[in-house]
Amino acid sequence: MAKIKTIGIMTSGGDAPGMNAAIRAVTRAGISNGFNIKAIYRGYEGLINGEIKPFTTENVSGIIGMGGTILKTARSKEFPTDEGQQRAYETLVKEGIDALVVIGGNGSLTGAMEFARKFDICCIGLPGTIDNDLYGTDNTIGYDTTMNTIMECVDRIRDTAQSHERIFFVEVMGRDAGFLAQNSAIACGAEAAIIPEESTDVDQLAEFMKRGIRKSKKSCIVIVSESPKCGAMYYADRVKNEFPDYDVRVSILGHLQRGGTPTARDRILASRTGVGAIEAIMQGQRNIMVGVRNNEVVYVPLSEAIRSDKPFDKKLIKVLEELSI
Amino acid sequence: MAKIKTIGIMTSGGDAPGMNAAIRAVTRAGISNGFNIKAIYRGYEGLINGEIKPFTTENVSGIIGMGGTILKTARSKEFPTDEGQQRAYETLVKEGIDALVVIGGNGSLTGAMEFARKFDICCIGLPGTIDNDLYGTDNTIGYDTTMNTIMECVDRIRDTAQSHERIFFVEVMGRDAGFLAQNSAIACGAEAAIIPEESTDVDQLAEFMKRGIRKSKKSCIVIVSESPKCGAMYYADRVKNEFPDYDVRVSILGHLQRGGTPTARDRILASRTGVGAIEAIMQGQRNIMVGVRNNEVVYVPLSEAIRSDKPFDKKLIKVLEELSI
Amino acid sequence: MAKIKTIGIMTSGGDAPGMNAAIRAVTRAGISNGFNIKAIYRGYEGLINGEIKPFTTENVSGIIGMGGTILKTARSKEFPTDEGQQRAYETLVKEGIDALVVIGGNGSLTGAMEFARKFDICCIGLPGTIDNDLYGTDNTIGYDTTMNTIMECVDRIRDTAQSHERIFFVEVMGRDAGFLAQNSAIACGAEAAIIPEESTDVDQLAEFMKRGIRKSKKSCIVIVSESPKCGAMYYADRVKNEFPDYDVRVSILGHLQRGGTPTARDRILASRTGVGAIEAIMQGQRNIMVGVRNNEVVYVPLSEAIRSDKPFDKKLIKVLEELSI
Amino acid sequence: MAKIKTIGIMTSGGDAPGMNAAIRAVTRAGISNGFNIKAIYRGYEGLINGEIKPFTTENVSGIIGMGGTILKTARSKEFPTDEGQQRAYETLVKEGIDALVVIGGNGSLTGAMEFARKFDICCIGLPGTIDNDLYGTDNTIGYDTTMNTIMECVDRIRDTAQSHERIFFVEVMGRDAGFLAQNSAIACGAEAAIIPEESTDVDQLAEFMKRGIRKSKKSCIVIVSESPKCGAMYYADRVKNEFPDYDVRVSILGHLQRGGTPTARDRILASRTGVGAIEAIMQGQRNIMVGVRNNEVVYVPLSEAIRSDKPFDKKLIKVLEELSI
Repeated sequence: MAKIKTIGIMTSGGDAPGMNAAIRAVTRAGISNGFNIKAIYRGYEGLINGEIKPFTTENVSGIIGMGGTILKTARSKEFPTDEGQQRAYETLVKEGIDALVVIGGNGSLTGAMEFARKFDICCIGLPGTIDNDLYGTDNTIGYDTTMNTIMECVDRIRDTAQSHERIFFVEVMGRDAGFLAQNSAIACGAEAAIIPEESTDVDQLAEFMKRGIRKSKKSCIVIVSESPKCGAMYYADRVKNEFPDYDVRVSILGHLQRGGTPTARDRILASRTGVGAIEAIMQGQRNIMVGVRNNEVVYVPLSEAIRSDKPFDKKLIKVLEELSI
Repeated sequence: MAKIKTIGIMTSGGDAPGMNAAIRAVTRAGISNGFNIKAIYRGYEGLINGEIKPFTTENVSGIIGMGGTILKTARSKEFPTDEGQQRAYETLVKEGIDALVVIGGNGSLTGAMEFARKFDICCIGLPGTIDNDLYGTDNTIGYDTTMNTIMECVDRIRDTAQSHERIFFVEVMGRDAGFLAQNSAIACGAEAAIIPEESTDVDQLAEFMKRGIRKSKKSCIVIVSESPKCGAMYYADRVKNEFPDYDVRVSILGHLQRGGTPTARDRILASRTGVGAIEAIMQGQRNIMVGVRNNEVVYVPLSEAIRSDKPFDKKLIKVLEELSI
Repeated sequence: MAKIKTIGIMTSGGDAPGMNAAIRAVTRAGISNGFNIKAIYRGYEGLINGEIKPFTTENVSGIIGMGGTILKTARSKEFPTDEGQQRAYETLVKEGIDALVVIGGNGSLTGAMEFARKFDICCIGLPGTIDNDLYGTDNTIGYDTTMNTIMECVDRIRDTAQSHERIFFVEVMGRDAGFLAQNSAIACGAEAAIIPEESTDVDQLAEFMKRGIRKSKKSCIVIVSESPKCGAMYYADRVKNEFPDYDVRVSILGHLQRGGTPTARDRILASRTGVGAIEAIMQGQRNIMVGVRNNEVVYVPLSEAIRSDKPFDKKLIKVLEELSI
Repeated sequence: MAKIKTIGIMTSGGDAPGMNAAIRAVTRAGISNGFNIKAIYRGYEGLINGEIKPFTTENVSGIIGMGGTILKTARSKEFPTDEGQQRAYETLVKEGIDALVVIGGNGSLTGAMEFARKFDICCIGLPGTIDNDLYGTDNTIGYDTTMNTIMECVDRIRDTAQSHERIFFVEVMGRDAGFLAQNSAIACGAEAAIIPEESTDVDQLAEFMKRGIRKSKKSCIVIVSESPKCGAMYYADRVKNEFPDYDVRVSILGHLQRGGTPTARDRILASRTGVGAIEAIMQGQRNIMVGVRNNEVVYVPLSEAIRSDKPFDKKLIKVLEELSI
């Protein structure tokens, strides 16, 4: 394996706050350590089409606090094909890119792993997704910001819920993982959370809500993890009849959960993993994701990182239950 | 007319940030000037049912920064009836309430006006609504906060819109008035606003959006004022075909627009009009709304305040157009 | 007077949030109406040294929400001299700039006025200062944001003040004007404000604070307008002896009051006055400041705008007094 | 040891955001598990003077998002004395309090430990301090919020620093620990941090700053951890001469760092440790602090928790250095 001189960097999949902080960290740590940095625009799409530009430290100046990604992002239809990957590889060769840093979620890192294997390239993943569903890192870049964004939104909704004595079902993002829903429910002081990791019995839920409302609470907030079939609307409809005196409402937070200036945590996580990506390359690591576990930077094989069974702490369910009395 | 000794205060209709600041102002200015203050809970509903409690300065301590209303609010079904109003009047007599301060929007002040006329009571309205649709005051309590909340949400959505190069239709509140949509569109740097005051030709809109996108912009945000028939979803569906390469998305901000800690403007407006309500009572004013116009506290007859033709500044349309190039 | 083709734009003096929104508005409205726009960096300093760059609509893309000024700002030592002004004029001629839009406060607009008179140039001022001390406009660009920033800071300080039952003197900006101090005091629910427009008797202040504390309040916040001699430290020292059981603390908010993303109001004010500046030029206006009064865009002669006697609404003092009981 | 029936709860020492969330969690989890809860006001001072009130779930309703502490806090002069502790113990006996939950920092938990040993009482500590200087827990309650507050303030200051091309020394809290300074410096993209864990050579610092400024950066921010002798003012004075063309400024963030609504992290940490405190009591634990380490709730002997050598991750210094080029 020849010495790595030029590192390509891209963001891919859904955007997440902190991606820019990660781009900055990879770029600056790379340059600090003597590498050339080339920015690849629009994820794998830009790799295929050669939308590439050399980056200096100035290109990433002032972006640490910006939401979204200055490199743009996309979900490429062509990259999963053999022809797409071949063209992407040719771009790398043509641009003299020896290693690739990919900031993204499950799908993006799966793509990186397959690409790396096929063409024997050094691919380093950074966990950039609001869903926190990557294995081997305590948190993903973007998760903390989105959790706080949800909390601020629900804090606002609670003002209305309490003033009007309403029941709200608030739908939040998270894909197949309930991290955002469960943790934001605790942070908001919500009465309940509906998450994919646990089956929810509508009758039990209604019973639980009624108990709280009978006591002294006159309003109620339930956080519901997004789901193609059983979102907030579904549960609201199912329990409405049980609460004839109440106004039952639904709020789907939607796209605003992705943006905004990243929190301190997300900026620090992005900075540490970004520096870690460069160190990994210098150490000869390949096809790993850089994460932070137990407050230490760790290298996780990409094949591990994309495992679908990131452990969910069931104790959080009890915490929410005991506090929502 | 006997001297007024006891003032009842209530919030009614949709909650708005700054209502608590207004409750505090009326209570403290009332007590400062020798009145007794009685808090009426749940709007007209509580007036009918006698949900009333004397207030001291401590009852309103620390509430200036809280969203919602500590007095709760409701839309009463009974109050519009003769019997409901009769019962409400009996409560007033029983509680010794000589004057009523009602914080609310169009419907609530209309109710106050009719009630005042029928029973010859002193009713003072404060403009408490996020929609800014009350005549005779430059701004209503809650409007500034909601405008900033919308702006923050759209700033977040823009991060995603730019990263993914998407077109977003964002639906905001405002009832029959486009103040929130038009002004927040300018504040967000949106590409266009769809408001009830202006008819929107879908073809022209699509043409306008295309021009911008063809130039250099790769994303686009259109703010749409809520409407039972022609909301954001309607317009998104109508223009989708015109943008085959783009991802067209809809975000309905919904209930989170009402809550949150009020801005400085809303707290000051609530404080000034709350003090103004007590002064109005001391001056023998009746059946007026207290507003602020040209930076002066003014008294507007309730019959004027609820007029439906609050002037909308058409120049703002041109401002948005020139800046969205 | 020849037809104006090219407009120069600069920011000068202390930075204020919303300056970027104004730069964007002038640039885009200018280009919308067929003008060339040239950006001048570092205020008058850059005009003297020729730090100038043509601007397109893209140069101002995405800046509406940014604090500070992308054009940088400075207080020039050379510009007040004859030689400095001569060199500045020569730059204008060389660059073909026919009109100058200056965004800044009192000093900057005074400079613009003198320069305009001396060389018979079209100078248009925009009121860019957090202090709100320009005559003829209800608000200046930056004032609303800073008022909200102060409010957020004092809301935080109050948490500590109440938890520890302390007395806080909080010093805020405003130069020779008490707008920020008086209005933020109302917005924060502070117990008192010390402003340059009113003389403050320390004994009376202490008496007033004691009365409040004796009643039920266990903490107290006094907002003090900055002053070279009599700032927060001065008043804290003077009243300390009167409150032996209390912890008296001082907080000087300082530079953080200037920055941050502008509020909706400031972005809209900047947008409207920026568009107004271009309209003024098209109408042949010269040496005026564009403001907004009674919600209408107005043109104020620069000589008027810099008058030092912008009226201060004394009724606000009574509002604060009645509400701090 | 008799069965524990009644639990006293108090906050002590400097207030920290999230203390209210912890009070709520202990109260609700306690009641959920059959205990009586008694609230002790003003820390040890209130324990000595018997300022105690029984709490129900309603007493803690709506406080999860509030900064400060509804139980007030104080630094007691009497408690460290034998007589003070004796009186405190007598209050416990009189009130029938069998176990004490103390939310506070180093000093407060030291007091709890000594008190527990002397009178053989069950004392449980919760880590409530913004400084993050308690051993055995990854984070303390309040730390995350304060880190974000500092970040927001410095983001604002940077707007001014860049607009005016200034050098800023920003002083932040942290007592003898540099966690806040070092981590917020990374989060803010500051150029350097001065922390108690590392000695700082002024000449080297100036050299480092000059290198950055010479390159392309025109402004510079240095975060300085508070220190009685060598705060931000000290370093600013020392390096001023080295930067004759620059405006060197100091900003001391001060008390506003303590307050504000807690972040999601702090609310969740407070909720988990609060529930953990009740579980610890049910398990017969005594004289431990409840923390969260590696995302698990842990019990740390109080004698360990107050050790002064919480490990500081030196790698963070390198992260900051590489990214501030």
